[in-house]
Amino acid sequence: MSGRLAVIGLGPGDARWITPEAETALTAADAVYGYGAYLDRVPARPRQSRHPSDNREEGARAAAALAHATRGAHVAIVSGGDPGVFAMAATVCAEIEAGPPAWRELDIAIVPGITAMLAVAARVGAPLGHDFCALSLSDNLKPWDLIERRLAAAASAGFIIAIYNPVSQARPWQLGAAFDCVGKLLPALAPVIFGRAIGRGDERVEVTTLGAAKPVAADMATLVIIGSAETRTVMREGRTPLVYTSRAVASARI
Amino acid sequence: MSGRLAVIGLGPGDARWITPEAETALTAADAVYGYGAYLDRVPARPRQSRHPSDNREEGARAAAALAHATRGAHVAIVSGGDPGVFAMAATVCAEIEAGPPAWRELDIAIVPGITAMLAVAARVGAPLGHDFCALSLSDNLKPWDLIERRLAAAASAGFIIAIYNPVSQARPWQLGAAFDCVGKLLPALAPVIFGRAIGRGDERVEVTTLGAAKPVAADMATLVIIGSAETRTVMREGRTPLVYTSRAVASARI
Repeated sequence: MSGRLAVIGLGPGDARWITPEAETALTAADAVYGYGAYLDRVPARPRQSRHPSDNREEGARAAAALAHATRGAHVAIVSGGDPGVFAMAATVCAEIEAGPPAWRELDIAIVPGITAMLAVAARVGAPLGHDFCALSLSDNLKPWDLIERRLAAAASAGFIIAIYNPVSQARPWQLGAAFDCVGKLLPALAPVIFGRAIGRGDERVEVTTLGAAKPVAADMATLVIIGSAETRTVMREGRTPLVYTSRAVASARI
Repeated sequence: MSGRLAVIGLGPGDARWITPEAETALTAADAVYGYGAYLDRVPARPRQSRHPSDNREEGARAAAALAHATRGAHVAIVSGGDPGVFAMAATVCAEIEAGPPAWRELDIAIVPGITAMLAVAARVGAPLGHDFCALSLSDNLKPWDLIERRLAAAASAGFIIAIYNPVSQARPWQLGAAFDCVGKLLPALAPVIFGRAIGRGDERVEVTTLGAAKPVAADMATLVIIGSAETRTVMREGRTPLVYTSRAVASARI
């Protein structure tokens, strides 16, 4: 049997977002690797070994899974959301590039999933209905001045901005700095959405404005969407407002 | 019975990307609206009416579905990919904003799906593993100079760029102009991926470079990803290369 590694996206917390392709890939695996909290979302299967690891051990996890697959096993690594968005698929590719030649001979499959920004956007309407960008606010792996430059470029050019990893215990001030940065370029009434733990029992969604947004509304499980000057809020009696961005810019709207 | 409208993402062509949530929402619908080609992907169900319409009739389709729901029905609109990304969810929100008060009282659910860029990225590795943007190249709804400004802003700031709607019969030159625009800002060796009809029988994936990319490789069913200066290609004997972008920028890499 030749070795195979599948990097599988589980989507955000709700099992109803796990695709049939992901289910099939999980069923076919001899061994499943992943950050413990994601592995906990995968039911145990007979004759399938489980290899939880810490959130910060991504490179070592990918290497262990690749080495396991070269012994002829069908190995899976699970990610929350989509494995290609700020997650394990890039780590696996980097390990393959740096690793032994045998790793390049493996059958590698990336199984896409619903990434957090799509799930958060769906909860409020369609804020990502126009050109948008996705940006990780973590300055562990890139310098903060580059992040500010990207935020400014995106806001100036009219992209809606989806912010992954807005805060952590070690990064308490970055989201406030990001709001300040785009606040110089966007209207104070631009909608801001905090989507926390989407699809889990403790889900919370808040719609506010850039002028009123408080960084304390976000934690490690939150994704933040900052609308553009074109993003609109539609109030509804007794319901959460709808937030959307039209595909047409105002100047071109028919 | 109070009216309900679900806007449902079917993902790209492969049925294995339709989530359980989408299946449940389809099963619960009394009526299904959608562009004919998307509706064809939904098996007919007993006691469920079907309302196909043309690709260009998005506003009218949304309005008809909303009016239908106000009569107390459970109505679904289907979209390919994710309904919130250049698709029907924003159109529905815009119709609600412009429409009669009764439309604001409906129960609106957006059901997310795998959007094309995630599926294309998965086929080649993890090109979207770092900060990225999604941009529609259609200048039907926004001026071309704004599109060029966004392309330049994204490329200059180091975002990977996913291009939706790269060409159509009425828009033959725009993709070439986009390559020229970013070609002034990115290395000629930056990877470019053409992903056509992903998940369908006629799927085709091509990995090339910005210097060698030919717009003729794209058609209406193609999504194009343009890597950044940090996007890497890993050659593999007898297999398609892996393309990925590290979460760490080179200057911050450990």
